[in-house]
Amino acid sequence: MPKPGGASAVAHPNIAFIKYWGNRDHLLRLPANGSLSMNLGSLKTQTTVEFDRQLKTEQLRINDKDALPEQVKRVSAFLDIVRQMAGIEHFARVDSQNNFPSGSGIASSSSAFAALALAATRAVGLDLSEQALSRLARRGSGSASRSVPAGFVEWRAANTDEDSYGSSIAPAGHWALEDCIAIVSEEHKAIGSSQGHKLADSSPLQAARIASAEARLATCRQAILQRDFAALAQVTELDNHLMHAVMMTSRPPLLYWQAASVAVMHAVNDWRAAGTPACYTLDAGPNVHVICEAASADKVATQLSEIPGVVRILRSGLGGAVQSLD
Amino acid sequence: MPKPGGASAVAHPNIAFIKYWGNRDHLLRLPANGSLSMNLGSLKTQTTVEFDRQLKTEQLRINDKDALPEQVKRVSAFLDIVRQMAGIEHFARVDSQNNFPSGSGIASSSSAFAALALAATRAVGLDLSEQALSRLARRGSGSASRSVPAGFVEWRAANTDEDSYGSSIAPAGHWALEDCIAIVSEEHKAIGSSQGHKLADSSPLQAARIASAEARLATCRQAILQRDFAALAQVTELDNHLMHAVMMTSRPPLLYWQAASVAVMHAVNDWRAAGTPACYTLDAGPNVHVICEAASADKVATQLSEIPGVVRILRSGLGGAVQSLD
Repeated sequence: MPKPGGASAVAHPNIAFIKYWGNRDHLLRLPANGSLSMNLGSLKTQTTVEFDRQLKTEQLRINDKDALPEQVKRVSAFLDIVRQMAGIEHFARVDSQNNFPSGSGIASSSSAFAALALAATRAVGLDLSEQALSRLARRGSGSASRSVPAGFVEWRAANTDEDSYGSSIAPAGHWALEDCIAIVSEEHKAIGSSQGHKLADSSPLQAARIASAEARLATCRQAILQRDFAALAQVTELDNHLMHAVMMTSRPPLLYWQAASVAVMHAVNDWRAAGTPACYTLDAGPNVHVICEAASADKVATQLSEIPGVVRILRSGLGGAVQSLD
Repeated sequence: MPKPGGASAVAHPNIAFIKYWGNRDHLLRLPANGSLSMNLGSLKTQTTVEFDRQLKTEQLRINDKDALPEQVKRVSAFLDIVRQMAGIEHFARVDSQNNFPSGSGIASSSSAFAALALAATRAVGLDLSEQALSRLARRGSGSASRSVPAGFVEWRAANTDEDSYGSSIAPAGHWALEDCIAIVSEEHKAIGSSQGHKLADSSPLQAARIASAEARLATCRQAILQRDFAALAQVTELDNHLMHAVMMTSRPPLLYWQAASVAVMHAVNDWRAAGTPACYTLDAGPNVHVICEAASADKVATQLSEIPGVVRILRSGLGGAVQSLD
């Protein structure tokens, strides 16, 4: 039954050490390979959903603006799954707010669909398990499956909807890492992730990336569990390069890196060679996530802000699970 | 018999559309895949070699300076092959001059070993066929095999020394292309190509790059023979990204791109989208070779020089074969 007044939830975006790029099933968003990320506690999406029999269409506002038609379409398709689960047909009023810029390589869709999954299911009176909620969030955006559980989260690849969900491998407090995000552009990217995933198989390199992903997942999992920064840095940068290699060799090619992105990459490598525990990774956009140990984060953020082309720095430590605000 | 006064030769470096990266045999420099390039007529290496029984060691000067010990070692190893062919044991006096900066992604070793191969064999009184000279030059630097014949040159992969050499697929006059080289750094690169080739197999992507190389070679050969710039641009940039993908995912990773390299890459893509026949490719260094139709070269060079981080532009049209100066 729709809950009067609706329901609200808040979720954190995540940044992946081992990347998700390409699907074995685009409709179900079953990923080509497993991935591993950490939630970013300072960055948030807060979403309220109210199903209302009076509504004649879906109503979606993002950051206090009416959403674009393609955004409404994507959210409606997602809410159709929730309506089917609940056996209702009402349209919904959805209001979503980010405290960070969207569409520039900070995975706003991860927190957006994690928060939407929880708010929408609560708004229809459903109380899903974490696993079921992660599976549902995945249907809206693959990486959203990793924003449902807390802390360090692994999303295993699987051949069925039932088996593909995120689970926490360590809580937020396990390791004091920080993500200093060097913002080099706040423009929306030309080709978003959902379209990009469909191009992955057009690269001659995707099969090799996938074939070697399980080994990197194991290395990364162990590096996190053992708090081994050097190992984490090496596998994170390698996996990042592998994903961007696939992107830039797909048809059409996707070259998300900008000049300043590469300047940051070289600087981070120089700093690490000089002893600072920092490494980089980029999502489908030009901004560079510089992961470092929290004790070095002030220094890293200051140095990043001095690199030409870096507009500003966003900072975040680890984050918890998606939360209901009711 | 050593020729009194020695012998001189001049050769042009080349820029590859389909790249050489990795060997099936490092000692013989038998490449993992075939490659295709054009010689750059305005850029030259001129080399004089004189074998002299009075000498107690090899003497090598490059650009009017005594060469570094590792350069002497590499040249000596190459001259050993020539001495063996000629049945002599004299050391040689070698003087080599480039009219362009070396070690920054302009393949100075290609022209250097092509000129050295011709000058050294003439200096011992040998007169090799083009094929034999290309095979010999290959032993000094793989890409030098492509600087021996004229114009557009293909170097076929092969399993034996006898079968791996460059041959011209079209003369210099076949197609009026120009290479506008955006110099973003004149520093010597940290890891040179010879070392880099040995790292290629440490990338999880090298096998996939090699497996798909023959198809790209065929596409590129046809694009050149038909003077189809759009097809040449697409396959050249794809192949470039594939090589750099292997480089940046090898252990240790080789990230030759600098910030300004990426700025140039985006600019060239924008220009081409707007109708200018131009595309980019980079060798093992940060400088960007912008290949364009000669009619557009003035405009391209001017626009390149306005990109922040571009220090200067070198320009060259097609070049002929290695030439004896005697």
